[in-house]
Parts: sequence; structure tokens; C-alpha cells
Amino acid sequence: MNYDLLIIGSGPAGLSASIYASRYKIKHAVLGELPGGLMLEAHKVCNFPTETEITGFDLAGKIKAHADSFGVESIMEKVTSVEKTNDFFTVKTINGKELTAKTVLIATGTIHRHLDLPDESRFVGHGISYCATCDAMFYKNKTVAVAGSGNSALTAALYLAEVAEKVYLVVRGDQFKGETVWVDSVKSNPKIEVIFNTHIVGLEGTERLEEIKLSNDSVLAVAGLFVEVGSRPDASWFGDLNLEFDPAGYIKVSSDQATNQIGVWAAGDITNASNGLRQIITACAEGAVATAGIFQYLQKGK
Amino acid sequence: MNYDLLIIGSGPAGLSASIYASRYKIKHAVLGELPGGLMLEAHKVCNFPTETEITGFDLAGKIKAHADSFGVESIMEKVTSVEKTNDFFTVKTINGKELTAKTVLIATGTIHRHLDLPDESRFVGHGISYCATCDAMFYKNKTVAVAGSGNSALTAALYLAEVAEKVYLVVRGDQFKGETVWVDSVKSNPKIEVIFNTHIVGLEGTERLEEIKLSNDSVLAVAGLFVEVGSRPDASWFGDLNLEFDPAGYIKVSSDQATNQIGVWAAGDITNASNGLRQIITACAEGAVATAGIFQYLQKGK
Repeated sequence: MNYDLLIIGSGPAGLSASIYASRYKIKHAVLGELPGGLMLEAHKVCNFPTETEITGFDLAGKIKAHADSFGVESIMEKVTSVEKTNDFFTVKTINGKELTAKTVLIATGTIHRHLDLPDESRFVGHGISYCATCDAMFYKNKTVAVAGSGNSALTAALYLAEVAEKVYLVVRGDQFKGETVWVDSVKSNPKIEVIFNTHIVGLEGTERLEEIKLSNDSVLAVAGLFVEVGSRPDASWFGDLNLEFDPAGYIKVSSDQATNQIGVWAAGDITNASNGLRQIITACAEGAVATAGIFQYLQKGK
Repeated sequence: MNYDLLIIGSGPAGLSASIYASRYKIKHAVLGELPGGLMLEAHKVCNFPTETEITGFDLAGKIKAHADSFGVESIMEKVTSVEKTNDFFTVKTINGKELTAKTVLIATGTIHRHLDLPDESRFVGHGISYCATCDAMFYKNKTVAVAGSGNSALTAALYLAEVAEKVYLVVRGDQFKGETVWVDSVKSNPKIEVIFNTHIVGLEGTERLEEIKLSNDSVLAVAGLFVEVGSRPDASWFGDLNLEFDPAGYIKVSSDQATNQIGVWAAGDITNASNGLRQIITACAEGAVATAGIFQYLQKGK
């Protein structure tokens, strides 16, 4: 047995869990593809309590530096499988590493669903955002569009309407998929113009996004486009664990971040914890709570 | 109606909630006695993910600066009562202020139970700690004592035994009050010496704590004493709200940090959230989750 704990994922949840694990003297390693995870996508983070404004890159660097200060083993390789054999876990990486541990913590986050349009990736941070809570403030008194029809699109439009001059809400079908109360609020908000039966077919701009082309042949001049067509857990590689998911596909965890499988914890955006808020601060907290639970579990096994 | 939200408590939960409330454009004010709350007691904080090491004072200052950057109204007066009248709340302060709001967030934290010995307060941060998770690292290879008999004392002793040279566990009665598994682990740990039927009657030292005097007339030379005799929510002033508490006296909250009373949320150490871990990072996260819930509630009422 190599480890007491393997943390899979190196975003805020995984790194925060590692900090707590080091403090609890749990023998562990962190596996991931990129230290910082999706946080790195945020060109400015303005809602982390201790930082009035910071780049996602710098915030990730601060958490990573803290985790590294304990000399934690960091294996930056994609994990390809996790298997349970009797009472331990075998974790394999893309480069052929094979590690075993008494417990695993899954903190692999989510992937934003994209529109999959040409130039979409080029405009990320330059007009395209996947998080209204994170980025709305950058569009004060400007015109923006939101793509989507569910609760996240509706609440994004409402939140943006508090800040922006005008909000177009582009809906693919002929109705919303969110709660009535949000639908009513959107309909009665004079700043929001809903465009049904329409999807976005093109993105235009030089340095930044300037225009979006719609399937009805019209063109909207916007400073920003919020793509709120959902996100999905990166669940491709842990199919063998028989985890329980909520209806939206997130891993179900109990109050100590434990999953339905003994020895498997989960934290961060991939879970249904923190009432689905999914912020950097909640991911960090969930990592801490998970590790406290893992510490208790390992102590009981001693 | 003066406010959409009144945040009662100015520790990490209350200040984090205020940051999110400002971002959600919720008209609110923060009431409290001291910006930072119990965090200010920590002479060093080493488990906040983004800070490898920081004083509680400086960490509180960073969160306060962020909250203040939005121009939030901060009323540093002790709250003496909160009453619900029809569908709004009236909050009164010790200086006679009377404020009304659609919602309230209770974030008043807990008070550590003390031994109530002479010089106890003088040694806080100089040998006396109320939080093993926070401060154990400062006692590497030293001799420490823990006072208490419940799960928090048992886990504190186990955690300290991973770091310290020797741990005395001073128990007032003739048995432990915690879970069997912790009791067994403590009993089998060669670094922990349990002293039953004994309480601490005196604290000695010049600059720092050096010795503790026991009721059995013996004296222990220790570098640190962890007082783990529990903490209690500061519940004196919200008796009129008929909140639901867990058996330990913490406010019961649901996954969105709502209490059993419509319009009343709670976050931070005063609640049973985050599986009872009660860290600065969990308090911040709970403040964010609560505010997201309050935003949705207020939107539905529009």
C-alpha cells in the first residue's frame, strides 16, 4: 500500500484537501493535469473573500504554494482509471504509473458545456464567459447576451440585468426549462429581451467579441456573451466505482463529503455539495471537510 | 423597510456573506462587535488555503477590506434583539439603533468554553489554545496537555500526538464522553498519557505558559495547553426567533444555510453546517452559500 490517500484533481478542492491532509499527517499525493484547474480560466477573480481582485492564475499559485510548503508529492499526469480491489484502491495514470491507497478523494471538477463555435476559445476572457457570478461586474452599463434556457441562464440574465445596460437572452427552443419564478422575473424585467427559437451561429470581433450572429439571420452587437448551457462532471474515468449521482450528474455526497462508496470522498464542483453554488471558496471548504472525514476514517482503521 | 438583508456578525461568515451580497446588489448592512470575530484570536493561521502563514488580524483585515471595497454599511454595535413582525425583522442594537429588513443572516459564531482560571486569558496565544487543528504545528516535538473528555478533546490529543513529543490528557471525571473508537485510539497511543479524575487548578509561567497545576497536587511542565472543553453558540439575543438547534446547541440549517424560520439564514461556527468542522474557510463558504439562497428568496418575492 503506497498511500493513505490519493487526491485526484488539482483545483481548489484538491489542493485545499492536500493542505489539510498535510496538517493531519495523512500520507498522500495529489494527481492532476494542471495545478489550479478551471480557476486558471478566470482572468479576474473578484469574489474570493480574502482577495478584492486577483487573477485566477495568481490565486491558484497561492493555494499551490501553500500545498507545496508541506513537501506534498504532486503527480501532474492525467488519471485514466480508479479501481477498488478488496479494501484498497488502484489509481492508474496515462503515463503508466500505478498507485495504491486506502482512500481516494475525487476533485476533478466540471467541464463547461461550450457552444462549439469557431473562435469561441479565442474569445474566452475577451467577451465570452461561462460564469455570470464571476464576471458580470466587468459588463457594467454594457450590452450582453446570455445563451441558455435553464435556471443558470435565467439567473445569469437576472444577475446581469442588475449591472448591465441591456441583456439579450437567446433561447434555442420555444420555452424556458427553468423554474416558473425565474421565468416570471425574467419576463417582467425591462432590461432583458428574450429571443426564442434561435441559436447562436457565429462570433465576430477582432481583439474582443463584438457581435454574435443568430440563426434568424440577425446580428447583435454585444460586449459580452455568457454561455450558460450547463456544465458536466468529468466522469469519464471513474465509471468502475459505481458512485451515486444526482439527476444533474454530480456525485452525491453526505455532509462529510463521503460518497456512497466506502473509502471514496468527493469535493468541489463535481459534487452536489454547497447547495450547488460551485465557487472557489466552496471548493476549498469542501476539500477541508472531506479531509477531516478521511482523517477520522483512517484513525478508525488503525 | 430599511434593508433587504441584515447580517448579524462580522467574522469570516458575515463578511464573506456581505461580499457576495454586494455582488448580488442586495441592499444590506453588517452588524457586529469586532470586524474579524474569533479569527482575531489566532496569532497565526496556517490552514487558510491561500495563505501559507498569516496572523488572524491580517487575514481578517483582508476580508474586511474586500467587503469595504463595495462601500457596505458597517454598524459596529452589539445586537441586543431580533424580532419578527409579520413578514419583516426588527433588529435592535445596544446603542438604541432600530433597523428593519426582509431577511436576516445570523453569523455570530461561538464562544470557546474556558477553564475560567486566573491568567488563562493572559496565556492565550502564549501556550493556551482552544483549537488543536489551528495550533498543533507550533508544538512539534514538545510536551503539551489537553483538557477535556469528549470527541474534541480525544481527537485533539490524537492530532497532537502526531506532532508533539508527549500529550497529557487531563479528564475531570473517571471516563471519556467521546466515541469508543476515539477512546480506543487514545488508549493505544504510546504518546498520550491519560490522567482521570483530575482537573486543572492553576496556570504558571512568566511570558508563556510553563506549568499546569492539577487537583491531585501534581505539576506538569508543558509548552502548551489545549482547552477542549467545548464551545457554545452566542445565542443570548435571538431567543425570540424560535430557531431549531441541534443537540449540541448549534443552529440547524439546510443545504442552502436556511434555518427553520422563513427569512432567517445562518452561517459560520454558530451552525451545524460543514459537518461541524468550523474553520475560517468553511465559514467563508457558508456565508457565500447563504447569500446565494437569500438572493433567490428575495428575487422570488419581487
